[in-house]
Amino acid sequence: MYKANIYVTLKEGVLDPQGGAVKKSLHVLNYTGVTEVRIGKFIEVWLEAKDPETAKVELKEMSDKLLANPVIENYRVEMLEVE
Amino acid sequence: MYKANIYVTLKEGVLDPQGGAVKKSLHVLNYTGVTEVRIGKFIEVWLEAKDPETAKVELKEMSDKLLANPVIENYRVEMLEVE
Repeated sequence: MYKANIYVTLKEGVLDPQGGAVKKSLHVLNYTGVTEVRIGKFIEVWLEAKDPETAKVELKEMSDKLLANPVIENYRVEMLEVE
Repeated sequence: MYKANIYVTLKEGVLDPQGGAVKKSLHVLNYTGVTEVRIGKFIEVWLEAKDPETAKVELKEMSDKLLANPVIENYRVEMLEVE
């Protein structure tokens, strides 16, 4: 069994209205030192595969096809073997 | 200037309908080895603070008050000093 952590972030230059709203709210709460907020996804996937190479290939495919939108998002995959 | 990565995840036992939907979609795409998917948030915050201790305290407060819902979510903060 493999466990993957996938971090999906908006590409630089892509507008992040959710991050902008959170930044404004933090300023209202008096955290005026906050200069920028960007909000992405943290996706955890557990999967069975015959070997780690297969798992890595599948995770890359899943990210490209479904988990991230490669036009506007970057992603990074970390994987470890678990019991 | 400090940069923080904040990982917000649903607590164990809290239902994750979005993760369930993604798991089903991955099965439809023939990734049948996927046994579980959990979807959380990956929040990046840049802030100014007079020292790292102050920054850490503020980040913890922001997470408790706004970025995470402590009733159903856990969070983890990583912080580094940047230029």
